[in-house]
Amino acid sequence: MSAFPEIGKIAYEGPESDNPLAFRWYNPDEVVEGKTMKDHLRFSVVYWHTFRGTGSDPFGPGTAVRPWEDGTDSVENACNRARVAFEFIEKLGAPFYAFHDRDIAPEGANLAETNSNLDAVVAVLKEEQQRTGIKLLWGTANMFSNPRFMHGAATSCNADVVAYAGAQVKKALEVTKELGGENYVFWGGREGYQNLYNTDIRRELDHLGSFFHMAVDYAKEIGFDGPFLIEPKPKEPTKHQYDSDAAACINFLRAYELTDHFKLNIETNHATLAGHSMMHELDYAGAQDMIGSIDANTGDMLLGWDTDQFPTDYYLTSQTMLMLLKYGGLTTGGVNFDAKVRRESFEPIDLFYAHIGGMDAFARGLKIAAAIRADKALENFVSERYASFDSGIGQKIEQGKTSLKELEAYMLEKGEADANQSGRQEMLENVFNRYIDRV
Amino acid sequence: MSAFPEIGKIAYEGPESDNPLAFRWYNPDEVVEGKTMKDHLRFSVVYWHTFRGTGSDPFGPGTAVRPWEDGTDSVENACNRARVAFEFIEKLGAPFYAFHDRDIAPEGANLAETNSNLDAVVAVLKEEQQRTGIKLLWGTANMFSNPRFMHGAATSCNADVVAYAGAQVKKALEVTKELGGENYVFWGGREGYQNLYNTDIRRELDHLGSFFHMAVDYAKEIGFDGPFLIEPKPKEPTKHQYDSDAAACINFLRAYELTDHFKLNIETNHATLAGHSMMHELDYAGAQDMIGSIDANTGDMLLGWDTDQFPTDYYLTSQTMLMLLKYGGLTTGGVNFDAKVRRESFEPIDLFYAHIGGMDAFARGLKIAAAIRADKALENFVSERYASFDSGIGQKIEQGKTSLKELEAYMLEKGEADANQSGRQEMLENVFNRYIDRV
Amino acid sequence: MSAFPEIGKIAYEGPESDNPLAFRWYNPDEVVEGKTMKDHLRFSVVYWHTFRGTGSDPFGPGTAVRPWEDGTDSVENACNRARVAFEFIEKLGAPFYAFHDRDIAPEGANLAETNSNLDAVVAVLKEEQQRTGIKLLWGTANMFSNPRFMHGAATSCNADVVAYAGAQVKKALEVTKELGGENYVFWGGREGYQNLYNTDIRRELDHLGSFFHMAVDYAKEIGFDGPFLIEPKPKEPTKHQYDSDAAACINFLRAYELTDHFKLNIETNHATLAGHSMMHELDYAGAQDMIGSIDANTGDMLLGWDTDQFPTDYYLTSQTMLMLLKYGGLTTGGVNFDAKVRRESFEPIDLFYAHIGGMDAFARGLKIAAAIRADKALENFVSERYASFDSGIGQKIEQGKTSLKELEAYMLEKGEADANQSGRQEMLENVFNRYIDRV
Amino acid sequence: MSAFPEIGKIAYEGPESDNPLAFRWYNPDEVVEGKTMKDHLRFSVVYWHTFRGTGSDPFGPGTAVRPWEDGTDSVENACNRARVAFEFIEKLGAPFYAFHDRDIAPEGANLAETNSNLDAVVAVLKEEQQRTGIKLLWGTANMFSNPRFMHGAATSCNADVVAYAGAQVKKALEVTKELGGENYVFWGGREGYQNLYNTDIRRELDHLGSFFHMAVDYAKEIGFDGPFLIEPKPKEPTKHQYDSDAAACINFLRAYELTDHFKLNIETNHATLAGHSMMHELDYAGAQDMIGSIDANTGDMLLGWDTDQFPTDYYLTSQTMLMLLKYGGLTTGGVNFDAKVRRESFEPIDLFYAHIGGMDAFARGLKIAAAIRADKALENFVSERYASFDSGIGQKIEQGKTSLKELEAYMLEKGEADANQSGRQEMLENVFNRYIDRV
Repeated sequence: MSAFPEIGKIAYEGPESDNPLAFRWYNPDEVVEGKTMKDHLRFSVVYWHTFRGTGSDPFGPGTAVRPWEDGTDSVENACNRARVAFEFIEKLGAPFYAFHDRDIAPEGANLAETNSNLDAVVAVLKEEQQRTGIKLLWGTANMFSNPRFMHGAATSCNADVVAYAGAQVKKALEVTKELGGENYVFWGGREGYQNLYNTDIRRELDHLGSFFHMAVDYAKEIGFDGPFLIEPKPKEPTKHQYDSDAAACINFLRAYELTDHFKLNIETNHATLAGHSMMHELDYAGAQDMIGSIDANTGDMLLGWDTDQFPTDYYLTSQTMLMLLKYGGLTTGGVNFDAKVRRESFEPIDLFYAHIGGMDAFARGLKIAAAIRADKALENFVSERYASFDSGIGQKIEQGKTSLKELEAYMLEKGEADANQSGRQEMLENVFNRYIDRV
Repeated sequence: MSAFPEIGKIAYEGPESDNPLAFRWYNPDEVVEGKTMKDHLRFSVVYWHTFRGTGSDPFGPGTAVRPWEDGTDSVENACNRARVAFEFIEKLGAPFYAFHDRDIAPEGANLAETNSNLDAVVAVLKEEQQRTGIKLLWGTANMFSNPRFMHGAATSCNADVVAYAGAQVKKALEVTKELGGENYVFWGGREGYQNLYNTDIRRELDHLGSFFHMAVDYAKEIGFDGPFLIEPKPKEPTKHQYDSDAAACINFLRAYELTDHFKLNIETNHATLAGHSMMHELDYAGAQDMIGSIDANTGDMLLGWDTDQFPTDYYLTSQTMLMLLKYGGLTTGGVNFDAKVRRESFEPIDLFYAHIGGMDAFARGLKIAAAIRADKALENFVSERYASFDSGIGQKIEQGKTSLKELEAYMLEKGEADANQSGRQEMLENVFNRYIDRV
Repeated sequence: MSAFPEIGKIAYEGPESDNPLAFRWYNPDEVVEGKTMKDHLRFSVVYWHTFRGTGSDPFGPGTAVRPWEDGTDSVENACNRARVAFEFIEKLGAPFYAFHDRDIAPEGANLAETNSNLDAVVAVLKEEQQRTGIKLLWGTANMFSNPRFMHGAATSCNADVVAYAGAQVKKALEVTKELGGENYVFWGGREGYQNLYNTDIRRELDHLGSFFHMAVDYAKEIGFDGPFLIEPKPKEPTKHQYDSDAAACINFLRAYELTDHFKLNIETNHATLAGHSMMHELDYAGAQDMIGSIDANTGDMLLGWDTDQFPTDYYLTSQTMLMLLKYGGLTTGGVNFDAKVRRESFEPIDLFYAHIGGMDAFARGLKIAAAIRADKALENFVSERYASFDSGIGQKIEQGKTSLKELEAYMLEKGEADANQSGRQEMLENVFNRYIDRV
Repeated sequence: MSAFPEIGKIAYEGPESDNPLAFRWYNPDEVVEGKTMKDHLRFSVVYWHTFRGTGSDPFGPGTAVRPWEDGTDSVENACNRARVAFEFIEKLGAPFYAFHDRDIAPEGANLAETNSNLDAVVAVLKEEQQRTGIKLLWGTANMFSNPRFMHGAATSCNADVVAYAGAQVKKALEVTKELGGENYVFWGGREGYQNLYNTDIRRELDHLGSFFHMAVDYAKEIGFDGPFLIEPKPKEPTKHQYDSDAAACINFLRAYELTDHFKLNIETNHATLAGHSMMHELDYAGAQDMIGSIDANTGDMLLGWDTDQFPTDYYLTSQTMLMLLKYGGLTTGGVNFDAKVRRESFEPIDLFYAHIGGMDAFARGLKIAAAIRADKALENFVSERYASFDSGIGQKIEQGKTSLKELEAYMLEKGEADANQSGRQEMLENVFNRYIDRV
């Protein structure tokens, strides 16, 4: 029985199409910069928003109409929902999906029962993966919703809660491996603090470091070889999350000697909440070889919370793809739509509109980025701008082969530095628009 | 000849005083937690705002009335200004001051002449230091005002500019040593970018790393043994500064193996522009043993630029002192008023009002913090909150002596974690107020 | 049967008390500026957060432990909860409370049943009011939680929803009158938009204007003579609320000729989300005679959503009381704690700590403000600052009795304006601290 | 003698052009929606940023290379600069320009001399206007740069300063009329406050009201019949500007009965600093018939100050043009580039790149908006969404012909409102992209 009987497989119809249920840009097999769009973009649908989102917000309960739900929190309903999810993803044509353990199966009366619920749904997911060829981009454990995690999970002040979280990650790792997940993600839910008066930052961070090492050890033990990803976010639900941005994450990983095992899962809306552009977070992480995957969404720059909107802005998608291509493209990662339809977009068909819009925007962004790269439209400008470091005193500086003394001698003789060149920001912004026009 | 003939030495008169030109809380020799206020607070007056600030803003020129200025940019005027500065600091009773090279002396036609101008004024400063006992908290080089630094200094795309910056730091280090400066500070002025389209982040950061290593080497060579401090700031004047917050700074220092030589100079207004409270930045840096000094000021939380106001909020000053005391207090660092009077507070006497207010607010904050600590009013709550890590499974987690497997076994048996305890945020906020009331 | 058997009536014990369950500043019968604290502050407890709040947030369900709840949404549970509420308010010693219709009673299968549920609980509330002497500060209708209101209530694009909202307000007005409510409040829940692409602003605002006129007419008809209050808030849950700040509210009221019947209910957290200080919103509204009541809480200035924390900052409470006293004090309005305990403060006793802290902070703020006023510590400065408008050309300007021509003639003769005087911001901030110290 | 000898008149070359000094979209005589692009867009170049901007910022002096400047503040230099300005505007092909009095001519020793300086330059401007056909969009008076205006102009606490401002506005009005200016603008520079402790809001607003009435009267007297425009901005340089956003401006105009004479000059960067989108401010003002003109620029959404960047984002320009067309298009107003090149874009040619980019972005935005309108792609959706107000109970509500009683009766009978329809935000965002693709 179909949950979306009126919807067929979403097809590529090209830019001229007026069909709101067709792709205008995402043509999976079209080759761009030597790879198919499908392989470049590795689109992933998220289980939590798309199949568990209800449209509730702090001022009202859910609005979403989801006819396939029976209103219970049973394993049976969860299994049925899993079938619906795969129908959706398959019709959409996304090659990947991602989940938290608690998205897919209900908690039971105790940990054992909870794990057994999980196993039951995992069996269905596995079957559906085999039936459709859709793959698991990553798994993760929800360690923030249950009231037990009110003070955090690995950073809880309650040792038993850390233990519970450890048990949960163990199972989530096993399940991720079982389903062939290509990565394992930690988003630090409530790993942060609400108030410093009652918090011991050092102790909490030490526990987090230990926790991650246990995860690394266990992954090795069971042969899970995908990378771990941590996901920067500065705030919400806590007042201050430890993984506040790429810099804070990488600093933590360096401090606890975890950089060999972890990369970042970078999200647009989290970046902007932290005061950074998505382009910045990607360039900054990429320069340190720390890009793992992206959570593709957008915030509203005038709102101060995580709105998780679908990304449709071509500037955003072009800049994102420009950075991903610059650092070698996605390998195990994907373009994962951690995005939700608005509370007022409550019909199932809105889920299609939303994903189609996001996929098209990224497909077009990929083409724009590739066109800019093909012409080296920015790259040549940048190379020339730093050319003074390719030889002479600049090269010595770059190679760490000079000293303040030598620099002083050089400059005392010269008296003044060579003239600067215009940064040409406005011209480059026009160049960017030229490629938006042309694709 | 006095610049402030009507003002005598600012005296401590106690909380009941109505005299706006007296201290009500700062009593230098009063002992708090085993040290004098003077030694705890190590107040420092900044040369740039207090002696070079004019009140100009992007919408209008300066307004400040400074009768001692002759309106020229001569070395003579600079020397005279130095005498005025020391009269001010002496009357105020602050034990330290801080400067950028270009605050104290004008640039000349070339580097050699500029250095010679600097030497002339340094001679006066040295004399004044000896006369008054006032000491140099830190020196630094202004590598952001001169148009040559439009694209940055150590991270400029123009190698000659990096060379110039190197020469300038060399001299500034010499001068700082000559004047007995206790630290050397880098605030990254324009070390960042305006636009990523024209920027090579990786190359710029590599140059910055090399640059700092050259500074470390030269300090060793000349026997300057104070710590280097870098100062987090997220934006302004650039769109994005590399040293955006404590996390970004420490991550950089770890990446370039500079943590042995550098600590942080943390500023309130920079913290809040980065989305963090001052208390957070101090606690976060302190937990990593990276607190060096503080720039004491405050921003306006409703404005998005660096307003550098004088700090008068007792919550801010109490929380700041609580963190400093927690991590052992200031050693080479100080409470440095990187703050300026408003453009409309244009008379010399406003400089006194402003500093007196800031010093009193910090003195009272010190007393509040000490009272909280004496009663362990927060500390006991925190210790008890994390007590589950002092033994059993918690201790194993903290010591890294367990595994996900063991945690799972433990929790499968137990079924559910022990109950959480209330975070009591509201009660603790009331406790904080109790100490504000009592001091 | 008591819900809080271990708690007695909260008593005033004075500033030296260490008892976290006593008042240190709120002494109801203490006279300040000619009125008792009780009459100045008119404290009000809110039904929604305090008796219906669960601690849920967008990332997890409720945590609150409320032993008196039976877990059902029955009228019986609602009646029992009403008794508990009055026990709480009575023990706390607050003279007022406030509610939305749906806080106190559950919705039924249709409007008639819903109204009848409401009547059942209102009877209990009336009984409890009579028993305790606690009064209703204001009533309001919740027209934002039910999914029917997803597109707004009076500004919904669905006319039936506007009709439903009208029916609901009619009943809420009747109930408010029945319980002797002193005001009726509109907080515009979802009166705003999520996206301008699908919105007709003009039509929505016209409907809102009509709606308010219907409310005014019906109040007259039933003899409800308390003022209507609208409550500024810029965003959340919608992307943009029409009543975004005091200016937008007053502009709307002027445009639709409603200023005779409406005043504002101003909330701190809403003010700051709109980019204004609470002091600004009160001064701005007061200058236009539009202050009705206040929602007393505080946001976290580093977070972009409505955190509704209890207000404990003495600067905030002093400034708020200074503005209220300046504009004649509260008449029908009150200091209404639209504030909630943190999700981690899940025990009933946390409700006491939270309210005690807020009441004490406002009591102390009242005393500080009164002390400043008694000395005319700011008032005299301000009067003198504007003295040039008390006579001569200034008086002519103020009275609208001059012209550009006359001003030009005056200034051509004079050549330049008389000198300005320093704004003395820093000195005045120190003065403010002096009063915080002394109370 | 040409200031830009290497630049000819900027020509339209079409979207395929790679020439950075040609228009790709702005084709002045192309007809869109029944009018030429030139008449729709009424582009205007600003004197202040483009001819007086130096690139200075709070952290460093100017960088701009402007070979035509002789470095003096003489009338002669000002006259020469005026010729250069017209060469630039003419080569660019913009039909309008705008200025502050002090942009074009230096202040003298007293008001009389200042006025005479102004007259000398106005004569040159008039000559150049006649020579080129370029027109004055609007004039205004700079009443914020001179230190005399530190406390504001019409809202200064110093009556003499208000008088000076009045004299200045008189002259600026005369000059604007003399040059055929089509509007007169007030941007409230320092009309606001830095601190409420020293401010009397009510008195200041009363003075502002009187001041505007004097301006209205004098305009009538001299026969200047263009509209007055006030320009919303929330902050900077003051902490809080009275004209904080469109709502605050209109509320003020209503309160002082000035709505017949004033409209708004709405700026993108000011809108976003106030927490609103440009589209919002235009829709809100348009719905009240208050759009006068726009200041076309953009801010950086991650920065909290007025960056005044050139607008190149097609979403922004399309949405802006959509709103302008919706409300009848620009009449006396224009698309005025209140935008400046970055400090690092210091060459004259950057001024060309910047304006070309802005003009092209607006031309393309116009075409996108016109295409959306031609298809009624959003309009039809909106009409249908509100169709329930076209008859029945909805119509009665809209016409103010019903009552709460009638609404209750209607709804008691019905029991529940008719079902809502999806808001379809995601679908509409995709529709918008479709038009961006197609133009």
